[in-house]
Amino acid sequence: MKPHTVGIVTAGEMGSGVGTVLHQQGIRVLTWLEGRSDVTRERARHAGMVEVPDLETLVRESEMVLSIVPPATAPAVADQLAAAVRATSADVLIADCNAIAPGTVRGIAQVITDAGARFADAGIIGPPPTRPGNRFFTSGAGAAEFARLAEAGLAVRVLDGDVGKASALKMCFAALTKGLQALGTELLVAARLLGVDEVLRGEQQRDMGNILAYLDRAAPTMVPKAHRWVGEMEEIARCFDEVGLPGATFEGIAEIYRRVTECDDAPIDEVLDCIAEQCRLRREAPSLA
Amino acid sequence: MKPHTVGIVTAGEMGSGVGTVLHQQGIRVLTWLEGRSDVTRERARHAGMVEVPDLETLVRESEMVLSIVPPATAPAVADQLAAAVRATSADVLIADCNAIAPGTVRGIAQVITDAGARFADAGIIGPPPTRPGNRFFTSGAGAAEFARLAEAGLAVRVLDGDVGKASALKMCFAALTKGLQALGTELLVAARLLGVDEVLRGEQQRDMGNILAYLDRAAPTMVPKAHRWVGEMEEIARCFDEVGLPGATFEGIAEIYRRVTECDDAPIDEVLDCIAEQCRLRREAPSLA
Repeated sequence: MKPHTVGIVTAGEMGSGVGTVLHQQGIRVLTWLEGRSDVTRERARHAGMVEVPDLETLVRESEMVLSIVPPATAPAVADQLAAAVRATSADVLIADCNAIAPGTVRGIAQVITDAGARFADAGIIGPPPTRPGNRFFTSGAGAAEFARLAEAGLAVRVLDGDVGKASALKMCFAALTKGLQALGTELLVAARLLGVDEVLRGEQQRDMGNILAYLDRAAPTMVPKAHRWVGEMEEIARCFDEVGLPGATFEGIAEIYRRVTECDDAPIDEVLDCIAEQCRLRREAPSLA
Repeated sequence: MKPHTVGIVTAGEMGSGVGTVLHQQGIRVLTWLEGRSDVTRERARHAGMVEVPDLETLVRESEMVLSIVPPATAPAVADQLAAAVRATSADVLIADCNAIAPGTVRGIAQVITDAGARFADAGIIGPPPTRPGNRFFTSGAGAAEFARLAEAGLAVRVLDGDVGKASALKMCFAALTKGLQALGTELLVAARLLGVDEVLRGEQQRDMGNILAYLDRAAPTMVPKAHRWVGEMEEIARCFDEVGLPGATFEGIAEIYRRVTECDDAPIDEVLDCIAEQCRLRREAPSLA
């Protein structure tokens, strides 16, 4: 049976997309927006999400709360949710839906269950659920309860296994999609700085046109998302290090997205110029970079 | 006009492929095989390459000498060629055709021209020229002379610019092809270790089937080539660091190929198991890894 009230922290692009779908299914969707921008508030209102004054109210009035935040902030948000659960003795399921390493989500699960709430690990693949292609994966003791959202318009698949499994899937999936985009960006900037970008494009078109087409399709969405992806790539580095693989690859990729965040949202050509300019400044004044 | 005599160091898969094509065009192809395996000698013989007893003979009797060696050994081979040029005062063009950073090839150019020979930077894209898709790029003062090989059955394109340009193109091209294969390998090993490989495959197939198809096609050639690619990825790291981009990405990728070299040449499934097993050993005994 689908839940009556679901809390979502916070109303970013993904969070508000989830809120929109749940609201359309007749669910009361609560959110907490302290310190958030007017854009986020407007997005929440448009999604039919109802703002509550504090996290205590959120965990007390919701049957389940979904944490959908930039990956780097997931542990801090979990700490706040745990404090709210402890303060209210709320009877609630907390689901971490963020792109974080299995080790990170296991730490969060411990904090949440120690505070007295139930917990589900969840991973989201694809765009917000207002568009085709979105799906949730979930694992751990709270997975079956989280899967009630399948009756509320979301595609949810329960994975066998403990907390960490859903996050592991998300990490491995994102490693290819976002790893490839970062590689493509890094080598295009290098080619530009080395003066071989035009001839390179022709040679790539000849041997790997499908890959270029993928990169071309992905490029326009990179700048607005890069600020979230920095933390996500750092979580992939952690995830891979945890299993004994070189995390360095994704530390380099995180650095690429860090540079992308310094650029204005513009056609990819201008973004590459912006990163190239940062490289030039670094070479001229390494101590300032 | 095509050259009469060309030297090639050494007769690996690429070197012997180049030797085969030049030999078929009526060019006398010399090589130097001291310390090389019986397999390499047999490959050279099959290609119609004539073994000479030392590098002095090679540089004296050849109009041009192509260095086609594992990237990590390119500077040492260049030092040996320079010594041979110095000892013989040979009138010869030395072309470095290896996958190395612009900074590395500039160092080699200095060594070769200081010894009194002419120099061309060259980069090879695609398979050996006995198969379709091979092409050479060349730059620097010796590029026009190197391009005489276009009359000897090779696809050669001269790039505007100095020594380093041809190598830069090769680096940026290989960064995508070999970078993507390494990413694919790393995340598949991670997925296996984390127990999400089957579900991951289905999700990737759904969203990025073209990329999977590319990786599946590339996988069978990875093991026999990985020993060369370790050095090549380290050169890409150097190349990207030189222009102010994070080399860490390709240091991680080099480490992936280092692990691949520890595996037997087998179906990709067994190669992934082999790398996964190395990861387990590292986690159990980090000090031994």
